[in-house]
Amino acid sequence: MRYLDQTRLPDEEVWKETSDYREIARAISRLEVRGAPLIGITAAYGLALAAAAGEDVVRAAEELRATRPTAVNLPWALDRCLRATEGLSEPAEVKKRLVGEAIAIHEEDIAANHRIGEYGAALLDNDTQSILTHCNAGALATGGYGTALGVIRSAHLGACPRTVYVNETRPLLQGARLTAWELSRDHIPCVIIVDSAAGSYMRRGEIDAVITGADRITANGDVANKIGTYPLAVLARENDIPFYVAAPTSTIDLSLASGDEIPIEERSPTEVTSLRIVRIAPWARDVLAENRAFDVTPNKYVTAIITENGVARAPYQETIAALCKQEVPARG
Amino acid sequence: MRYLDQTRLPDEEVWKETSDYREIARAISRLEVRGAPLIGITAAYGLALAAAAGEDVVRAAEELRATRPTAVNLPWALDRCLRATEGLSEPAEVKKRLVGEAIAIHEEDIAANHRIGEYGAALLDNDTQSILTHCNAGALATGGYGTALGVIRSAHLGACPRTVYVNETRPLLQGARLTAWELSRDHIPCVIIVDSAAGSYMRRGEIDAVITGADRITANGDVANKIGTYPLAVLARENDIPFYVAAPTSTIDLSLASGDEIPIEERSPTEVTSLRIVRIAPWARDVLAENRAFDVTPNKYVTAIITENGVARAPYQETIAALCKQEVPARG
Repeated sequence: MRYLDQTRLPDEEVWKETSDYREIARAISRLEVRGAPLIGITAAYGLALAAAAGEDVVRAAEELRATRPTAVNLPWALDRCLRATEGLSEPAEVKKRLVGEAIAIHEEDIAANHRIGEYGAALLDNDTQSILTHCNAGALATGGYGTALGVIRSAHLGACPRTVYVNETRPLLQGARLTAWELSRDHIPCVIIVDSAAGSYMRRGEIDAVITGADRITANGDVANKIGTYPLAVLARENDIPFYVAAPTSTIDLSLASGDEIPIEERSPTEVTSLRIVRIAPWARDVLAENRAFDVTPNKYVTAIITENGVARAPYQETIAALCKQEVPARG
Repeated sequence: MRYLDQTRLPDEEVWKETSDYREIARAISRLEVRGAPLIGITAAYGLALAAAAGEDVVRAAEELRATRPTAVNLPWALDRCLRATEGLSEPAEVKKRLVGEAIAIHEEDIAANHRIGEYGAALLDNDTQSILTHCNAGALATGGYGTALGVIRSAHLGACPRTVYVNETRPLLQGARLTAWELSRDHIPCVIIVDSAAGSYMRRGEIDAVITGADRITANGDVANKIGTYPLAVLARENDIPFYVAAPTSTIDLSLASGDEIPIEERSPTEVTSLRIVRIAPWARDVLAENRAFDVTPNKYVTAIITENGVARAPYQETIAALCKQEVPARG
């Protein structure tokens, strides 16, 4: 399979090709492939590669599952694929079933993104002239189109022009590197700001809505997403600005009651102390760094959660359960 | 005069020497010398250099004043120096008076920092085990010792060990580069985090107090400081954590009624789109960047303002006026 190495963007578009699921696992660990929905899709294709190579599928699933802890789309996709092979013993059949399931997950994600875009665009009125987003929840993070950026894309197709403020998203700059790159390819004007500037823009009335993706949403509507999301939600509420989360139902984890139960990945401190290849912090024994990759936004700060099955609002316990119960549209 | 080029830290300690006030003005513009109290002190020395070179002192003061708009210490120091020369016509006398005034401003700032440190340390109880700070409000930002870091230094001299969380402070990384460097030289343990992580640490109970410096405090207690300060204040209040501002009274501008009147510097977008020498954003017509250097924190989020004359709390209109009226201690 071919995948775009996102760590090289925006400088170069490097496509990699592999038939080894271990390469896929490494690509997910290294964030060459990232974004909650996309790592689910990619892991599903990885599992199909393992089957095609005659490898132990259950073991491959465990290796793929262990790459990153926070996004629930990863175990969701792997469990769905494993379930699809239940009762099959013929390797050729297992492979065929896994390839079919990976393609289905991929296609369903794209379709879900378009529906999320429509539901989300309908939420934004004509007074919503400027939208702030964080990290990258675009085509690069999904099967295509995007969740938060899908909403922005769909809204941009409508009548009014909009300015998109893009948080650069330290430490790995998914906003400055990836979101700005995606939006520029669609000719949607964007303005990159440092993450800590968002509060000032909100206080001065320069942001009309905030929209982000999610890595895991619990049954009560708490949202784990890229570090820095929780401050945006608090600042949005403080300034009476709606804070929207856009995510497919595959990002919802009904098995967890609240966000406190979500495992939060801690990544290497060198991502903080260096920026790309440049060291930015002193080398000293007393100087440490920490690199918490995600935070949890309690549901009380979330104005609405936009899924492919509709829009959930508080009380989330009920509205999320209702959305998740909806029939997935039958595929042809 | 000699000054340390702070843009080269922590990689190298480069001291520059000049007798040209225009070089001093450039050093302030370029942030080779930065920090509200320090730019006041440095401008005062710059004015003395202009007098020593037989240049027009009033014109030199205007050039120095125009370098940066937000920190009030700059016009405060220049106006104080110009006032000190009122009635003098003999160039040698003007020069002598300006040198004396610059040294006085410098020495008073160091003394004020030590008093701020004592007042601030007394505010922190033994349960204050971990303190978050933003940007650099240390010896590097002042005549020596520091304001927010002065409080941390004084507290660290006391009984209990403390962990200092340091926001890296994008775009120019004064936290990761300067504060971590200063603290490491004092062997005070620190942990660098990205700016947007501070909210998660506060929500999880890992921060006991937040303390920053200030660039300008208005009569009502509103505080302009490095971009990213306002979100910290909002997040601190949301999580019941005290938010302290440490600054000498030379940072208080009684001529402005509220923070909305403070001129906020906008700096070059390339500070955002590049990190040190590395470009991090796409080159595309639709991709812009903005670089607002400061934000304003409304007084309602400020737990206390720590000055050399004592600690002000709400209602600030009265407490600040009272602190500013206090007699400056006579110098020998």
